[in-house]
Amino acid sequence: MDWLDKIKWDGNGLVPVIAQERGSNDVLMLAFMNREALARTAELGQAVYWSRSRNRLWHKGEESGHYQQVHEIRLDCDNDVVLLKVTQLGHEAGIACHTGRHSCFFQRFEDGRWQNVEPVLKDPVSIYR
Amino acid sequence: MDWLDKIKWDGNGLVPVIAQERGSNDVLMLAFMNREALARTAELGQAVYWSRSRNRLWHKGEESGHYQQVHEIRLDCDNDVVLLKVTQLGHEAGIACHTGRHSCFFQRFEDGRWQNVEPVLKDPVSIYR
Repeated sequence: MDWLDKIKWDGNGLVPVIAQERGSNDVLMLAFMNREALARTAELGQAVYWSRSRNRLWHKGEESGHYQQVHEIRLDCDNDVVLLKVTQLGHEAGIACHTGRHSCFFQRFEDGRWQNVEPVLKDPVSIYR
Repeated sequence: MDWLDKIKWDGNGLVPVIAQERGSNDVLMLAFMNREALARTAELGQAVYWSRSRNRLWHKGEESGHYQQVHEIRLDCDNDVVLLKVTQLGHEAGIACHTGRHSCFFQRFEDGRWQNVEPVLKDPVSIYR
């Protein structure tokens, strides 16, 4: 059986993918892949997602330089969620979020509202130009 | 604004939720919440998900005893993914997966196929009885 057939793709042919930083184990982001994206990720050793907003393959880092080197590809017990262990590359390493932060999960629920609790490491204007 | 209104619920009124273990930072599982589930999670300090297979609220641990104590609730930059920092409780702590493993992400892609790379810590037959 093709390894890609084991995955339970959703109604849109996608699977959610968690990117976790090797070493720190920080969760950097969640995005989606279709079959082709996951196949290319495995071939390339870098994360290739499916952009739902742009409706096309998205080789992360193609615009920002913030590529993700993929060390491991994991699948959960229900075969419907993928987890990548990655190194977050870039001119300044470790910035996964388009806001210039380390992780996309920088809003924390505190005192009844969402607070930004992680610093911006690089001005996003200087990432995307 | 109600903090729950900030979340971009999907077409089914759900949001994907990553449960990450505090301390180790291991990713334990991914499940979904609706508005009520997230509200109850915040009130209770324990993870309450929406079971898509059973179509009802699912207070994790209600059958297995494997409750998740919630320390932090985080939201990503697009407001469409939630991350919980949890302690995985239970008679034997640290077992999040219904297969009796620590994490649901126990299948690793190696040599063209998925290999089980994490031990079963407790026979699932003895968890669900």
